[in-house]
Amino acid sequence: MAFGWIDERAASRYRAGLARTLRPRRADCPLLDLASNDYLGLARHPEVTEGAVRAARTWGGGATGSRLVTGTTTLHTDLERELAGFCGFEAALVLSSGYAANLAAVTALAPHGALIVSDAGNHASLIDGCRLARGAKQVVAHADPDAVRKALAAHGGTAVVVSDAVFSVDGDAAPLPGLAAACRERGAGLILDDAHGLGVLGDGGRGSAYAAGLADAEDVVVTVTLSKSLGSQGGAVLGPARVIDHLVNTARTFMFDTGLAPAAAGAALAALQLLRREPERAARARSVAGRLYTELTTAGLDAVRPDAAVVSVRAPSPEGAVRWAADCRAAGLSVGCFRPPSVPDGISRLRLTARADLSGEQVDRAVRLIGETRP
Amino acid sequence: MAFGWIDERAASRYRAGLARTLRPRRADCPLLDLASNDYLGLARHPEVTEGAVRAARTWGGGATGSRLVTGTTTLHTDLERELAGFCGFEAALVLSSGYAANLAAVTALAPHGALIVSDAGNHASLIDGCRLARGAKQVVAHADPDAVRKALAAHGGTAVVVSDAVFSVDGDAAPLPGLAAACRERGAGLILDDAHGLGVLGDGGRGSAYAAGLADAEDVVVTVTLSKSLGSQGGAVLGPARVIDHLVNTARTFMFDTGLAPAAAGAALAALQLLRREPERAARARSVAGRLYTELTTAGLDAVRPDAAVVSVRAPSPEGAVRWAADCRAAGLSVGCFRPPSVPDGISRLRLTARADLSGEQVDRAVRLIGETRP
Repeated sequence: MAFGWIDERAASRYRAGLARTLRPRRADCPLLDLASNDYLGLARHPEVTEGAVRAARTWGGGATGSRLVTGTTTLHTDLERELAGFCGFEAALVLSSGYAANLAAVTALAPHGALIVSDAGNHASLIDGCRLARGAKQVVAHADPDAVRKALAAHGGTAVVVSDAVFSVDGDAAPLPGLAAACRERGAGLILDDAHGLGVLGDGGRGSAYAAGLADAEDVVVTVTLSKSLGSQGGAVLGPARVIDHLVNTARTFMFDTGLAPAAAGAALAALQLLRREPERAARARSVAGRLYTELTTAGLDAVRPDAAVVSVRAPSPEGAVRWAADCRAAGLSVGCFRPPSVPDGISRLRLTARADLSGEQVDRAVRLIGETRP
Repeated sequence: MAFGWIDERAASRYRAGLARTLRPRRADCPLLDLASNDYLGLARHPEVTEGAVRAARTWGGGATGSRLVTGTTTLHTDLERELAGFCGFEAALVLSSGYAANLAAVTALAPHGALIVSDAGNHASLIDGCRLARGAKQVVAHADPDAVRKALAAHGGTAVVVSDAVFSVDGDAAPLPGLAAACRERGAGLILDDAHGLGVLGDGGRGSAYAAGLADAEDVVVTVTLSKSLGSQGGAVLGPARVIDHLVNTARTFMFDTGLAPAAAGAALAALQLLRREPERAARARSVAGRLYTELTTAGLDAVRPDAAVVSVRAPSPEGAVRWAADCRAAGLSVGCFRPPSVPDGISRLRLTARADLSGEQVDRAVRLIGETRP
């Protein structure tokens, strides 16, 4: 039978405690949320949702075509101008997801004959970008500029280094100055995925590259999502105008995808405007993360010191992580539960996210519940 | 200089007449639109935009996380139930784009050791799905069940056949009964991309698979977009519940992407409900396409007989196609212009789309302008 082979896969997932099911939430979900990536608490902010409302009423439910045919509205170019300006880059290109943005950037900037040097802890979308790209791939040790330097030296030709700026599972930041130095010694390009840095790191949330003095460099390209700190959906590539023009002309996930829905563009634009007006939100997200980490550690839990707004806590096993997260949920707390294949090192974790709008009391309650339900 | 190599690429694109630039449209764009994929004219329908508005206000600007963490709302599962029911399938899974849906379906259903047989005219997203999948790939002649049969016979093991149901450039339909028969002789699975069939083909717009009696078959999986006939954004995979469960657990573009924005889900759900109530919209789109084709042919233009709502017209060269489309635009008509690398056979075309809400007078005017501006 066609697709008959998937039943055995399902059975072995189940035996290994790795089966996943969707858990639909209601709009009035009463759980305390430490699982979402809504780092600044903007997804339900009235200015953001009204940005979506205005855009849907003005432009319609969809962009109606690919960006190169009918799918570019002046709303899209307004958003691109604002994003580039906020993050300190010359130009920006908006796509329908961060996943699509990473596929676009890596495939378009690593042609046949180029070398791609990729951090071992990179997000799935960067890994898939490396696999789709025509260039040769080399995976190097996590967060190790010397390993990058060695890989570049052994190649010699056109090369690009690809890394998360903030890694999604443990929330640790990449060593950006070291990576940039290694790239510059060899004339290599640097592609950074700042999905978890935008809105959290850098002055007023301008992101990891801005914080490291790498914004607007001719050899640095950054991808971001509109679906985390900006409370919407979509992704973008930021970089020199000539690089963005190259993506417009060659990046398949840009050229052959319908443009981002106006409502998502409108929500993201409203969130950016709000963030310009209230730059303190970024620092609040970091300070909530710091408090969360300190309290977890004090409670004897094995947490990783956060560089941004993600705090990860080691669990004893996949089954233990699932039970822990379920017990938290039963107690009124929503936490992320990451297991293989979502964790590069095979270690299951609870993944907690610090939102700028969490109160101290909420952080205390979350830590208490996590401690009480510890497996 | 890093990325220095892209300047030569840009220069050679320019010399070949293949450079692309974005053309932002205003909300009050006065052009007659025969370029968008808004086949049923629903993108700006008030029920659809108010579906987006309600969803944004109820659920927020974004889904806040991946579908397996916080990104599945009851709105997503309502939409999935409605989509599956409308198209006649057991289950559905919504993703952030049709591109992501195709990557998900092909990679998850063609593991290491499997053979993927792919039509030479397939959309970029199916091609990228084939490239990302671990299985072996074989490209076969366009719309040729015998070529598929031969490829399957030579392999013998687990196999999947991948095809657009309606091809996006010329608008021709795949030979579904022949493809299904070839698959069944060998126990192969069939993956059909019905981006351009949903809402246009089949009883009331239920799509190509429904029309061919292939909906709800245990060996058929269909992908659709929410961004064309449904006037929104997103994509979905339709199939047996066990296949959908397999995708939930293994498809990387599902697992590692933020869930579709509530506004897009709400708009698509409203469009589906409207289409159930007004099933005649599908037949109207087909009849407008037929009229467009007949009039173009009568005017001596080299058009391809449409199987759905896309009508393609051959142009003499890339430069000729660009000038033709620009002259149409100057005369008040928006048409698509497809050039390499967007056309598999290297032949540049105007691509016209028939919308259900185009009047006869509008079709006549469009044909007159296309004839008058002919290069």
